[in-house]
Amino acid sequence: MITKMSELFVRTLREDPADAEVPSHRWLVRGGYIRRAAPGIYTWLPLGLRVLHKVEDIVREEMDAIGGQEVHFPALLPREPYELTNRWIEYGPNLFRLKDRKGNDMLLGPTHEEMFTLLVKDLYSSYKDLPLVLYQIQTKYRDEARPRAGVLRGREFVMKDSYSFDIDDAGLQAAYDKHRDAYIRIFDRLGLEYVIVQAMSGAMGGSASEEFLAVAENGEDTFVRSPGGYAANVEAVAIGAPEPLPYDAAPAAHVEDTPDSTTIEALVRVANDLQPRTDRPWDGSDTLKNVVFMLEYPDGTKEPLAIGLPGDREVDEKRLEAQLEPAVAVPFAEEDFARYPSLVKGYIGPGVLGEENSSGIRYLTDPRVVEGTRWITGADAPQKHVFDLVCGRDFTSDGVIDVAEIRAGDPSPDGSGPLQLARGIEMGHIFQLGRKYADALGLKVLDQNGKQVTVTMGSYGVGVSRAVAAVAETTCDEKGLRWPRALAPFDVQLVATGKGTEVADYAAGLAQELDAAGITVLYDDRKASPGVKFADAELLGMPTTVVVGRGLAEGVVELRDRIEGTAEQVPVAEAVERIVAQVRG
Amino acid sequence: MITKMSELFVRTLREDPADAEVPSHRWLVRGGYIRRAAPGIYTWLPLGLRVLHKVEDIVREEMDAIGGQEVHFPALLPREPYELTNRWIEYGPNLFRLKDRKGNDMLLGPTHEEMFTLLVKDLYSSYKDLPLVLYQIQTKYRDEARPRAGVLRGREFVMKDSYSFDIDDAGLQAAYDKHRDAYIRIFDRLGLEYVIVQAMSGAMGGSASEEFLAVAENGEDTFVRSPGGYAANVEAVAIGAPEPLPYDAAPAAHVEDTPDSTTIEALVRVANDLQPRTDRPWDGSDTLKNVVFMLEYPDGTKEPLAIGLPGDREVDEKRLEAQLEPAVAVPFAEEDFARYPSLVKGYIGPGVLGEENSSGIRYLTDPRVVEGTRWITGADAPQKHVFDLVCGRDFTSDGVIDVAEIRAGDPSPDGSGPLQLARGIEMGHIFQLGRKYADALGLKVLDQNGKQVTVTMGSYGVGVSRAVAAVAETTCDEKGLRWPRALAPFDVQLVATGKGTEVADYAAGLAQELDAAGITVLYDDRKASPGVKFADAELLGMPTTVVVGRGLAEGVVELRDRIEGTAEQVPVAEAVERIVAQVRG
Repeated sequence: MITKMSELFVRTLREDPADAEVPSHRWLVRGGYIRRAAPGIYTWLPLGLRVLHKVEDIVREEMDAIGGQEVHFPALLPREPYELTNRWIEYGPNLFRLKDRKGNDMLLGPTHEEMFTLLVKDLYSSYKDLPLVLYQIQTKYRDEARPRAGVLRGREFVMKDSYSFDIDDAGLQAAYDKHRDAYIRIFDRLGLEYVIVQAMSGAMGGSASEEFLAVAENGEDTFVRSPGGYAANVEAVAIGAPEPLPYDAAPAAHVEDTPDSTTIEALVRVANDLQPRTDRPWDGSDTLKNVVFMLEYPDGTKEPLAIGLPGDREVDEKRLEAQLEPAVAVPFAEEDFARYPSLVKGYIGPGVLGEENSSGIRYLTDPRVVEGTRWITGADAPQKHVFDLVCGRDFTSDGVIDVAEIRAGDPSPDGSGPLQLARGIEMGHIFQLGRKYADALGLKVLDQNGKQVTVTMGSYGVGVSRAVAAVAETTCDEKGLRWPRALAPFDVQLVATGKGTEVADYAAGLAQELDAAGITVLYDDRKASPGVKFADAELLGMPTTVVVGRGLAEGVVELRDRIEGTAEQVPVAEAVERIVAQVRG
Repeated sequence: MITKMSELFVRTLREDPADAEVPSHRWLVRGGYIRRAAPGIYTWLPLGLRVLHKVEDIVREEMDAIGGQEVHFPALLPREPYELTNRWIEYGPNLFRLKDRKGNDMLLGPTHEEMFTLLVKDLYSSYKDLPLVLYQIQTKYRDEARPRAGVLRGREFVMKDSYSFDIDDAGLQAAYDKHRDAYIRIFDRLGLEYVIVQAMSGAMGGSASEEFLAVAENGEDTFVRSPGGYAANVEAVAIGAPEPLPYDAAPAAHVEDTPDSTTIEALVRVANDLQPRTDRPWDGSDTLKNVVFMLEYPDGTKEPLAIGLPGDREVDEKRLEAQLEPAVAVPFAEEDFARYPSLVKGYIGPGVLGEENSSGIRYLTDPRVVEGTRWITGADAPQKHVFDLVCGRDFTSDGVIDVAEIRAGDPSPDGSGPLQLARGIEMGHIFQLGRKYADALGLKVLDQNGKQVTVTMGSYGVGVSRAVAAVAETTCDEKGLRWPRALAPFDVQLVATGKGTEVADYAAGLAQELDAAGITVLYDDRKASPGVKFADAELLGMPTTVVVGRGLAEGVVELRDRIEGTAEQVPVAEAVERIVAQVRG
């Protein structure tokens, strides 16, 4: 296929879009790949759609290869199935809801567990029908609070979602493993550098789950890696509890005046003045900070929650959100404090926290707060803290919550050494859902013994439109896009420079020879300066550029490799062969 | 590709779905091609999706062949562009509207004229950028009052919509002609029997438009054909006005008592008693029936309208709707009559109708009501009619409206003889929009002289998901589906009958040989009776069925052609060659 640049529906832009936060967004818009239609909602222009279709083809091939069967659900769905699993409520404002002309509640599907479960229930009834893997490549909707970065996080997007149906846990594990392998092949073919990390399963429910993250500085996800190979999304890191400490020799708790010490830093200073340690100075990790939140559930109910954690750590917002979903945690406002007078702001201690204490507020503590640990913490009175408060002797909590920030250098849960932190873009997510949806919706089949058993399910997603942005994000440079060969909209951008008919004739002929060899060519035949054409070729990012210009008089054309950044003069006689060789890699 | 029936996600059903009104709906559901998710909203199961993708591929190839460039717009769209063209209102309850989390009005796109116009305005600015044809194959939404017949008229459906942009009328005509040719190729390839008819452009606005209708008894559209080749959707038929008649010799109008004559039949009987004609008896065509409607506009305003037409014809609801869109016409209710006391129900005549008469109601008449025609009509008093009321002498109307029913045998507008009526399914629609959208949205480019000129546009649609149903509808028989080879999900259904391993081994080997020859095979390897397998093969409708069974002992297999209804015994040695020959046609 030969497409002339003069006829292609594209207009490269010299200015960054005002809302571009990340390079992929900037280049995809400036290169005429995508165009914003509304916040978080994009139109795919011809170049972008070609890339999107290539991603779809790769995903489809690999899903077919593991025996997945493609179906296509509507995006506009009835409320009832989502009501049965409570997700109609739990999705909160992220769900696009609407009413049809008869007043029926409907939604735009954010993911289709319910619909797939009901479909299989509708048609299948026996263990003989299983195992089964169904998938779709389909448009999904989430009313993101902060759509960002073009198609990296949009409100309308294309996903591949698949669902496995098995009679038992071994079957689910096999389906999960097959998907994991397929995803490895998919992301390898997309040319992404990625990590597979342990993940939280969030609103999906279920147990085991892993994410495929494209490693990218501008990624929204933070993940950790250990020297021993442990890798997890930061939301999913379970730091583990240390062994309890003996506390027989611990001094009794005692309240001290600690004026002006509402910050951890000030408190540590006061502590070191008042009661210096002999082994080392006090630091923030010796203090127990108690933070109060109001949890807001999607159904509108509210509930307070106090979290106790070492004073040198903050509560990580995303880890907290992941633990509390579908509730949203909002820090206590003044009116909340007013409703709980036993809380003395800046001096809250375990004395008033916990379901059995005066405030009655549920109190969860960091895993590091184990029996025998000694703390400096609020004394529930202004300007006072309590010292040597021993966990298990002087206070207990209502449970553990693992939401403190993770820092580079923290010990890895696998004991293999310090954690490294990095950022990534979530490209895929595989879940062992188990029987949650099958239970809620009554998906059972007859087993070998004629007994009704509940089916166990997996749910697996790939961000198809997001993949376009992620590849762009991780391959672009300061001049523009640099597509891997598997995804480039065209194999070759052929740039003719100069005004001679000789150049134009040769270029047109070369385009035809390449086309005959099965190479797709974007032929820049415009009346524009060489500088404009070169800049556009770099911006658009085809992996190979061929320049036909002044060199033609000496019998050469220039062959540029956008990925390697190399350029060489190639004799005309060898041009086709050399170009084909570069394209075929 | 070989797919085993035992693994395919399909369950054929012996019962018709309760809501099946037409054969295609029944067979597509019973064959496991589609499944209802909500009223008018369907899931595509593996077999159905394969057909849908084949239709998409054909449409894409033909659009590419005329230089169309594929893009993909979101389905979820902002309100503003549709506000600018007034379609936010005009679509009325057919539009799915919703609010996002920030309270912004959004809609699910029923068609994308506005978005395409704005996109081109956004990126293009010169006559040099034109001509341009953009298209998409995309999911659309219309909240139909009466979704019906499965995917024949759904609320979520797949359309190919394309838009042409030209600097002048000649360019638009060329783009229109190219689309017309492409549509002919598309519908030929789909194997549809179709007619191209003149059409109304409806909510689209614009001037010239034609529809491609698949000829089908169960079609929702009625069209007419003349011996001379005139063809039009019944909504678009313009019957033309006869020549005025001389009326110098006409008797003066006179009011007569016509007791109990509120029906045309009764009135004709009374007229023949009272004042017999000498040439022939009076009939309904001599009477002028005046019908009053209340027009309801999408913005909620209302306006009465009276229509006068020959008494032997009814107002055709669809023709009326097409003429009045976006208003909806509702027959006068009792309270409407109460508000217009000069209207005497059953005896309404031109005496009170018209903007300048006592009721003030706008009065439009059938084209046959020309100057000099004489009528028996209501005298605006109970039990009284007026005779010899001459149009142009005794009354005039406020204009013409061509909404009377068309009957088989009516004279064709092209003068070539009587009209035939038939029914069809609208498969494609091509419009010359002209400058309506470009004007409303300000799409101008600089012409050769540096002057800003408004772009002229065309809009062209193909019902892609509907095509699946239309092909099924027009090819199925009493046993099930009969896919044309271009659309069948598999080329061959291979049925192995009997329990011998010899049969199974041979069938499996044959499947592999066919696969190697590039033939797609659905291999029915189930443990089921021959009767069940044959019935399923007929229901699923692959064009070729190969039966491997008892004949194998005598060295033959059976080759069945589902389309021709033939079956023959073929020697094993020739089987692959003969099957390939049948498949390749």
